Amino acid sequence: MGTVDQWVSAPARIADPDEGISVDELRLAARNHGMPLEALRYDVTPPGLHYLLTHYDIPALDPADWRLTVSGAVTRPLSLSLADLRIRPRVTRRVTLECAGNGRARLLPRPVSQPWLDEAVGTAEWTGTPLAAVLAEAGVAATAVDVAFTGADHGIERGVEQDYRRGLTLAEAMRDDVLLVDEMNGAPLLPQHGAPVRLIVPGWYGMAQVKWLVGIEVLETEFDGYQNVTSYRVKQEPDEPGEPVTRIMPKALIQPPGVPDFQSRVRVVDHGPVVLTGRAWSGWAPVDAVEISIDDGAGWRPAELGPQPAPYAWRSWRCRWDAVPGRYELRARARDAAGNEQPVGPAWNRQGMANNHAQRVTVVVR
Amino acid sequence: MGTVDQWVSAPARIADPDEGISVDELRLAARNHGMPLEALRYDVTPPGLHYLLTHYDIPALDPADWRLTVSGAVTRPLSLSLADLRIRPRVTRRVTLECAGNGRARLLPRPVSQPWLDEAVGTAEWTGTPLAAVLAEAGVAATAVDVAFTGADHGIERGVEQDYRRGLTLAEAMRDDVLLVDEMNGAPLLPQHGAPVRLIVPGWYGMAQVKWLVGIEVLETEFDGYQNVTSYRVKQEPDEPGEPVTRIMPKALIQPPGVPDFQSRVRVVDHGPVVLTGRAWSGWAPVDAVEISIDDGAGWRPAELGPQPAPYAWRSWRCRWDAVPGRYELRARARDAAGNEQPVGPAWNRQGMANNHAQRVTVVVR
Repeated sequence: MGTVDQWVSAPARIADPDEGISVDELRLAARNHGMPLEALRYDVTPPGLHYLLTHYDIPALDPADWRLTVSGAVTRPLSLSLADLRIRPRVTRRVTLECAGNGRARLLPRPVSQPWLDEAVGTAEWTGTPLAAVLAEAGVAATAVDVAFTGADHGIERGVEQDYRRGLTLAEAMRDDVLLVDEMNGAPLLPQHGAPVRLIVPGWYGMAQVKWLVGIEVLETEFDGYQNVTSYRVKQEPDEPGEPVTRIMPKALIQPPGVPDFQSRVRVVDHGPVVLTGRAWSGWAPVDAVEISIDDGAGWRPAELGPQPAPYAWRSWRCRWDAVPGRYELRARARDAAGNEQPVGPAWNRQGMANNHAQRVTVVVR
Repeated sequence: MGTVDQWVSAPARIADPDEGISVDELRLAARNHGMPLEALRYDVTPPGLHYLLTHYDIPALDPADWRLTVSGAVTRPLSLSLADLRIRPRVTRRVTLECAGNGRARLLPRPVSQPWLDEAVGTAEWTGTPLAAVLAEAGVAATAVDVAFTGADHGIERGVEQDYRRGLTLAEAMRDDVLLVDEMNGAPLLPQHGAPVRLIVPGWYGMAQVKWLVGIEVLETEFDGYQNVTSYRVKQEPDEPGEPVTRIMPKALIQPPGVPDFQSRVRVVDHGPVVLTGRAWSGWAPVDAVEISIDDGAGWRPAELGPQPAPYAWRSWRCRWDAVPGRYELRARARDAAGNEQPVGPAWNRQGMANNHAQRVTVVVR
């Protein structure tokens, strides 16, 4: 990149404590939209309302020309067309996806990147074919360690030019619920969701769900690409290696009750009985408890849980509230069956990753 | 609203000159997304990539229960079901829509509202039935002046609680290309685009394209509702009435060439011949010229125009550029057949409306 660097790609940084959102961050927010929170009403998120994070540009891939190569430490390298994939056994799984950076713009000080508030989430019915059988057909070497997945999206990030590429351990890649997906909610994948084919790794944050998939490489050493080793790490200092971001931490979201103000999005609710509703999910285990606070976390009451529709899909909850006039800060928190509890306040890390502090919904009861 | 006001809904304001984007503005940007600019490659914008602006919440309407009432100064008030509308003559029109607030966040000082940069645009194939025939069936009174359109979305804006409601003059409402639409790109309207039925007024900014339409009222006096009289006005001072926002001013956008940096979205282009491409549109008349600058507006070269696919749909353009290493600020400007010319710099107004200053795309050629 040479001297091009300084004009193009700045190092990661933390905003000053009183620094507003920059135009660079806003430009990302205008492209990479969240799910409007009233869409928590849908069991399955309609097209266009699911959150979206594209690292570079949405590529223009022609499904007729598209090929998926399976290479590296395999006995029989493969090159598959879309038709080759579609004649394989097909499975549909309902899976909730969340961006690992969700909640980042709530942190103080704020890591400068895609500035998510609470809404980088969505649930879809994903249809495709199990990855494990494709890897088995290629014949994975006994010495294999990791599998690297390459997308067709290409760009520069913190000075490093790259195709978007992520690695998984072989054990994770061989899970029977990991899919090569070409349909979302019963229709061919939309361009922005990875058409023609993407990876779905249920339970993991969005960075593992590689879109516009064109290459699968079986590796005999640990994958050391940018998106695993530099990005998507939980760390406090710029030079420490940090911990990798993996599965989705438990979270509950409240569907904002009543009606909104246009600018502040504060909610106005008529006094009387209100049924608060929302969704909760975790990538570690099913959610087994949701609690609601109407006083910004001072007191908590249990919510009633709806059925768990699939192992890694969000679960509905509801909670009655006898609303009395005044101003309230509603919070929700989830706990999963693996014992992970959602914290009320944020745990800061310098990339703003895997943050599951409790959403706050301001409500005025009249 | 009484004392609830102060907690909910603040008056419109202008940001301080050095004030970053606020969390309130970011929250709107996370809901109301733009069209990622690489989607300028598509003649018709795929679902989920079209821009979206929702004043309040996306309502949950059941198409089976939905009714559209036609009332006011008519001989035969109507109450139409979706089936009633769908058996009427059907027309498909390709129309480009743009938010009247597009470009607002580029203004200095910045009006505080939905903070659009350049991307609040999209083009779709809209299918429905002509409004004029429905009005004719209802029997519009000879004394009629305006027609008011009510959406099912409800909220509070600058202290005024309201259903979203917009008026059109009777003459505009009776244009033969104004449609009651229930399909977008050949599929039923998505919830966020106004399901089950919305209004499409080709050539006008988005505020006229009332979504979640439930009421049409023929008026014998000029419509004086909030969205016509208070919002969507071009004005310099808070207390002046200002001029109404109506049709879309001419604009050209450049599909950003090369590959992006993740954070800055600066483009990196390899030196040599480059074909710049993009789209241009106007709500006043077809675009008849697009010019491109590679030096931030100092010099201009003509672009070659593609065909005009429909009267109010964007038109493609292309322009060859022999790219030599260096840093460039690309600009594009359009002129329409009615003689409207796109300005390079912004014309400030206090609501940031109808601003069509020229987009700037920063490119580094290597």
